[in-house]
Amino acid sequence: MELGSPGAAPGGVSVSAVLPAGGSGERLGGATPKQFCAVQGRPLVSYAVRAMERISWISDVIVVVSPENTETMKTIIEKYGHKKVTVVKGGITRHRSIFNGLKVFAENEFSSHLLQKPEVVIIHDAVRPFVEEDIVAKVVMAAKEHGAAGAIRPLVSTVIASAADGCLDHSLERARYRASEMPQAFLFDTIYEAYQQCTDYDLDYGTECLHLVLKYCKTNAKLVEGTADLWKVTYKRDLYAADSIIKDNLSQQVCVTTNVKETLAQVGFLLPESLKSQIKAHLDISENNYFSIGMEDLTMIKKFARETKKKNILVYGLLIQCKDPLLLQETVNSAAALIMALIKDRNPELIGQLLVA
Amino acid sequence: MELGSPGAAPGGVSVSAVLPAGGSGERLGGATPKQFCAVQGRPLVSYAVRAMERISWISDVIVVVSPENTETMKTIIEKYGHKKVTVVKGGITRHRSIFNGLKVFAENEFSSHLLQKPEVVIIHDAVRPFVEEDIVAKVVMAAKEHGAAGAIRPLVSTVIASAADGCLDHSLERARYRASEMPQAFLFDTIYEAYQQCTDYDLDYGTECLHLVLKYCKTNAKLVEGTADLWKVTYKRDLYAADSIIKDNLSQQVCVTTNVKETLAQVGFLLPESLKSQIKAHLDISENNYFSIGMEDLTMIKKFARETKKKNILVYGLLIQCKDPLLLQETVNSAAALIMALIKDRNPELIGQLLVA
Repeated sequence: MELGSPGAAPGGVSVSAVLPAGGSGERLGGATPKQFCAVQGRPLVSYAVRAMERISWISDVIVVVSPENTETMKTIIEKYGHKKVTVVKGGITRHRSIFNGLKVFAENEFSSHLLQKPEVVIIHDAVRPFVEEDIVAKVVMAAKEHGAAGAIRPLVSTVIASAADGCLDHSLERARYRASEMPQAFLFDTIYEAYQQCTDYDLDYGTECLHLVLKYCKTNAKLVEGTADLWKVTYKRDLYAADSIIKDNLSQQVCVTTNVKETLAQVGFLLPESLKSQIKAHLDISENNYFSIGMEDLTMIKKFARETKKKNILVYGLLIQCKDPLLLQETVNSAAALIMALIKDRNPELIGQLLVA
Repeated sequence: MELGSPGAAPGGVSVSAVLPAGGSGERLGGATPKQFCAVQGRPLVSYAVRAMERISWISDVIVVVSPENTETMKTIIEKYGHKKVTVVKGGITRHRSIFNGLKVFAENEFSSHLLQKPEVVIIHDAVRPFVEEDIVAKVVMAAKEHGAAGAIRPLVSTVIASAADGCLDHSLERARYRASEMPQAFLFDTIYEAYQQCTDYDLDYGTECLHLVLKYCKTNAKLVEGTADLWKVTYKRDLYAADSIIKDNLSQQVCVTTNVKETLAQVGFLLPESLKSQIKAHLDISENNYFSIGMEDLTMIKKFARETKKKNILVYGLLIQCKDPLLLQETVNSAAALIMALIKDRNPELIGQLLVA
C-alpha cells in the first residue's frame, strides 16, 4: 500500500491526528521505551505513524515525544520517509503531552508554523501499530456527530474492586463494561476547550480524554466497537505478537529466480503450482541467469545477499536436485516447504545460504 | 524441569486443581478451541496441565472438557505422559464445568473412583500456559487463611460503562480496579457450598468464582498481585506470543557435534566462547565422528535429521570454512550467529540442511 492521494474525509470534515509517544515503557521491563522498540527492524512508532499517514484524508500527524527523544524521532521520520509528521515536545504526563500536541493547531508558540486547525482531531497511540482506515473513519464520523467518539473492546477479564484490606470488594458485571481503546476522535474545539478548562490534577492523574470532554464539555462520547487488532503493545509478549503479525502481513510476493536447464523446465511449472496453495500473491519465476554464476559459488551468493539485505530484500539460495524424474513432484514439494519456511521466519542470519530440496 | 516428588504444600494443606477446558475459542476465529491449539507442536492445555503437575504438592489435576473433546483430551494425556490428570465431562457453561470438576471430589457418580477431597482447591485455566509455583503457593496460602483468593493484575485499558444509547456513561478510575486473573484457590468446602447454593442464573451467566463465594458464603477473597505471565490466551495474537515465549523458554542447551581436524581444533575453543555470550546454558562440543559420514553427504544428514525430529531434536548441518587462519574469528562468529538463529527460530523445515559459515 502506498500513501494515498488526498481524498475526501468522512463527512467532508478536515482531520488531523495526534499520537502521544512519550511513555517510558516501564511495563516492558526494558530500557527502551516501547514505542521505540524495533519490530522486524522498524520502531513501533513508525508503524503507527504509517497507519495514520496512509489514510489520505488525514492532513497532519503530530507525534508528541519526551524532549530527550526528539532527535530519535526525527531520525525515524527521516529514515522511513514519513511525510505528514510534526514532532512536538511532550509534557510529564500523557494528558500534558496530548495538550501540547493540540496546541500546535491553536497556538503559534508551539510550532515554527501554525498548522491548519482541523475540524476533527484523532488521538491515537504510538504503541498501537495496527489500525485500519475503516475504524478510523467510523470514529471520525461519530465524533463529527456527537462531539467525541472512541473505539471500545469487550473486557477479556472480569474487573474487580478491591477493599482497603486487599480483599475483594465487588466484581463488575462484565457485560455492562467495556475496555476503552484507541483511536478516539473529537471536534477540535471540544477537546481543546476541555484541556484548557481542566485542573492540574486531571492533567497529572487522568487517563481518559473521553472522561475530560464528559466532565468539562458535557459531551457523552459515542462508543464504537473496534476490532481485535486495536490492542496496545504493553508487555514483552505484545512485542512478540506484533512481530509475528507484521511477518504475516509482509508482502507474500516471492521472486524465484532460477537458472533451470531446459530438461528441468518442468520445475518452473510445478514449483509455482505447489506454492500457490500457500501464497495468495503474485509469483514470478524468470528463467534467466541473473547471478551469472554457478550455484555452487557460495561466496558470491552471500555477498549478493548482504547487498540486497540493505534494501530489506532477503535472498536465499535453493538447489533443487532431481536426478530421478519420478521424485520430481516430491522434490518440488520439499522446495516449496523450504521457501514457505524462509518467508515465514524472515531470518536475516540465514541469507545467502544454499539450501537443498 | 522434571515432575517433582510429592512435597509439602504451603501451610501443610492438601491441594488439588481443577482446570476448566470446555471453551469454544470463538474469539480466536478458528475451528479449534483455543485450549487445543498447538503451540510449538503441543496443545496449549498440555502446557497448563504440565505447569500444575510439576508442582509436587498438587495431588490431582481435574481437566474438564466438553463431551465431544473427551477423547482428544485423553489422547493428549497419553501422548505427553501426564500422570495426575482425571478427565471430566463439562457442562454447557464455565461455572457448570467447574462444578462438575469439583463433584469428582465429593460425589461418587462423577468419577469411577472418588478422589481424595482436598482442603484447598485451585481453579486455573487451560489457556493460561505460564504459571509459576510461586504465585500458586501464594494464592493457596491466602485461600487457607481467607477461604478464597485470586490473582489480580493492573488494568491495561481504562474501563468504561456505556449507556443504553451506545454513548459513554462514565469511566472507572483505573487505580481503584484490577483485572481478575487465574489461578484462584478456595477452601474446598467453601467453593463447593457456593456452587450447591447458587442459582441457575449464576451457573449460566456468572463468570467469577470469587463473586460466588462472596455472594453465597460471605467470603471476601484475598487478592494477590500476579505476574505479567498469567495472561489468558484469547486472541490469535496471544497464540503468537505464547509461541515466542515457549521458544524462548525451550532448553538453550545446544549440542554441537564436530568432526574438527586437529589443525582446526581452535574452532572447538573459539565457537563455545562466541556462543557463551548469547546462551546461558551448558555447551557440549565433542570431537567425534558421530555421523561417520562426510559432511557433504546431504542425504544422510537429512535422513538423520528426520529421524531425530521424531524425538523433537532438530539437527542442522553447519560447515565451518576457514582456509584463511586470519579470518578464523570472523568465521566462528558467523557460525555462532547461524547457530543462534537456528535455535531461536526452531524451524522444523530447515532440519538436515547444511549451512555454511
